[in-house]
Amino acid sequence: MLAEKVLAGDGRAAARLMRDLDDRIPSAIDELRALHPHTGRAFVLGVTGNPGAGKSTVVDALIERYRKRGKRVGVVAVDPTSPFSGGAILGDRIRMQRHATDDGVFIRSLATRGHLGGLSRSTGDVVAVLDAMGFDVVIIETVGVGQDEVEIVSTAHTAVVVTVPGLGDDIQAIKAGILEIADVLVVNKADREGADRTVRDLTHMLDLRAGEPVEIVKTTATTGQGIDELVAAIDRHRQKDDGSRRARDRAAAQLLDLVRDRLNHAAQAALSARGGLAALAEDIAARRRDPYSVADEVVAAAKLV
Amino acid sequence: MLAEKVLAGDGRAAARLMRDLDDRIPSAIDELRALHPHTGRAFVLGVTGNPGAGKSTVVDALIERYRKRGKRVGVVAVDPTSPFSGGAILGDRIRMQRHATDDGVFIRSLATRGHLGGLSRSTGDVVAVLDAMGFDVVIIETVGVGQDEVEIVSTAHTAVVVTVPGLGDDIQAIKAGILEIADVLVVNKADREGADRTVRDLTHMLDLRAGEPVEIVKTTATTGQGIDELVAAIDRHRQKDDGSRRARDRAAAQLLDLVRDRLNHAAQAALSARGGLAALAEDIAARRRDPYSVADEVVAAAKLV
Repeated sequence: MLAEKVLAGDGRAAARLMRDLDDRIPSAIDELRALHPHTGRAFVLGVTGNPGAGKSTVVDALIERYRKRGKRVGVVAVDPTSPFSGGAILGDRIRMQRHATDDGVFIRSLATRGHLGGLSRSTGDVVAVLDAMGFDVVIIETVGVGQDEVEIVSTAHTAVVVTVPGLGDDIQAIKAGILEIADVLVVNKADREGADRTVRDLTHMLDLRAGEPVEIVKTTATTGQGIDELVAAIDRHRQKDDGSRRARDRAAAQLLDLVRDRLNHAAQAALSARGGLAALAEDIAARRRDPYSVADEVVAAAKLV
Repeated sequence: MLAEKVLAGDGRAAARLMRDLDDRIPSAIDELRALHPHTGRAFVLGVTGNPGAGKSTVVDALIERYRKRGKRVGVVAVDPTSPFSGGAILGDRIRMQRHATDDGVFIRSLATRGHLGGLSRSTGDVVAVLDAMGFDVVIIETVGVGQDEVEIVSTAHTAVVVTVPGLGDDIQAIKAGILEIADVLVVNKADREGADRTVRDLTHMLDLRAGEPVEIVKTTATTGQGIDELVAAIDRHRQKDDGSRRARDRAAAQLLDLVRDRLNHAAQAALSARGGLAALAEDIAARRRDPYSVADEVVAAAKLV
């Protein structure tokens, strides 16, 4: 069984299991089932923020600091993919590859794909594997600001949101969603003009927000400036919060994803059984049938096993 | 029946039906069923782009131009909402309110909400109602860059993507996803420095893209500069494309949404029947049970009717 090897820390077995999960090989779920009792020990750190804010560079610097403390670090990097082309942005992901030869670091990239979700399920699966392997810290890095990605990060023990000076109008975009999940806020590229003003604006926005106080840390991740302060702020949040609420949230999100995933599969099969999505859509577009009745039929044909 | 009044162009009946749909009143689906044969006539125009690009101002200017041509215009404005607070960004939506007293304009705001999607289903429902009411043009405006929103706009007859000069790093974010659905690209706030460079950059990116050529239009929507050119570019795209493929895509997306929505409801009911999500998540987080077996049980308990 792969699970035994994974529990023994075998990186090849872990990579194999992750591929099997991607390919939806049924036995892979049994492996996860076997791993589950051994999960829940890793510190799960979420990192998200605006495109171009330098999240990967911040993550890279965090990996280095945690490695210096002797911690083993797993990373799940979620890449935004066009729903159409299937290509992923890898850009500054390359920087992280310098850890590729370090056994204490495991980096896994996940592309977002497909109409019917599955991204957060996959992320949860990879976190579970890394956790079971004994990684002390598992960093989930999500690029972009989609709701799925916000949800993924919101279930981490500590959520770090990375932004940059001079967002102007886009400050509204941060306000809606990301800011509310932040446990620690990073103003990266703090050597740029306007950093202090951005800190002031964010402080003001945070004052208006309900909930726990949030620390704001200025970093210049490319030089390492401010990273020690960021690690300290993460430590403080981690000590303040026992993580049990987040663990429950994570379990709830994972369960919902698994249920949704199974239902979506049932729906796909039912669509095929009724003639396929394209043919049904053709009938609807031509006004030969209405979509509500067709949906009723498809759902009635869905077999849940 | 509300449907008859909607077909007669009764705005109050339409607003009532949209509220009933929001509240999931079962008879509302019957009304949509009755409207379906009368839909498919409106020209559906999607407008999306970066936060802060001035989409609402562009939409406002388009409404004015179409009204001058004697066209009746319906607008579905999709607001990004925090998954946590439920608040919507209304900011420059206010500008559009000057059309509120014009019977030839109907504006409906939709907030994104809830874990289990439903945004694109709601959008489709509202488009159907406006279409059945006899609006000549239905504009779907989505704020933000989430995958749901990209998908919604991609099913419009013509998809307009609005951007602004000086995006810098964020150009990558546009590249992934939005650019690929653009039929017409707008560089708004073209009075800003760097507009021509942005046009050059986008032209270069479009050259690398497969598919139909895309027109790029520079606008300054606040002054109306370039809006006539934008309308002309939209007209050219509309004439080039008979819209039948998009209509099928839209029907397929709507059917998928309806099926997904029903399945999600069945899943919610099944979760409640098994003790509720919170209690199940607690068991999983405490490692008393594994999420995969719980998901199997929930799905087995889901009754599809």
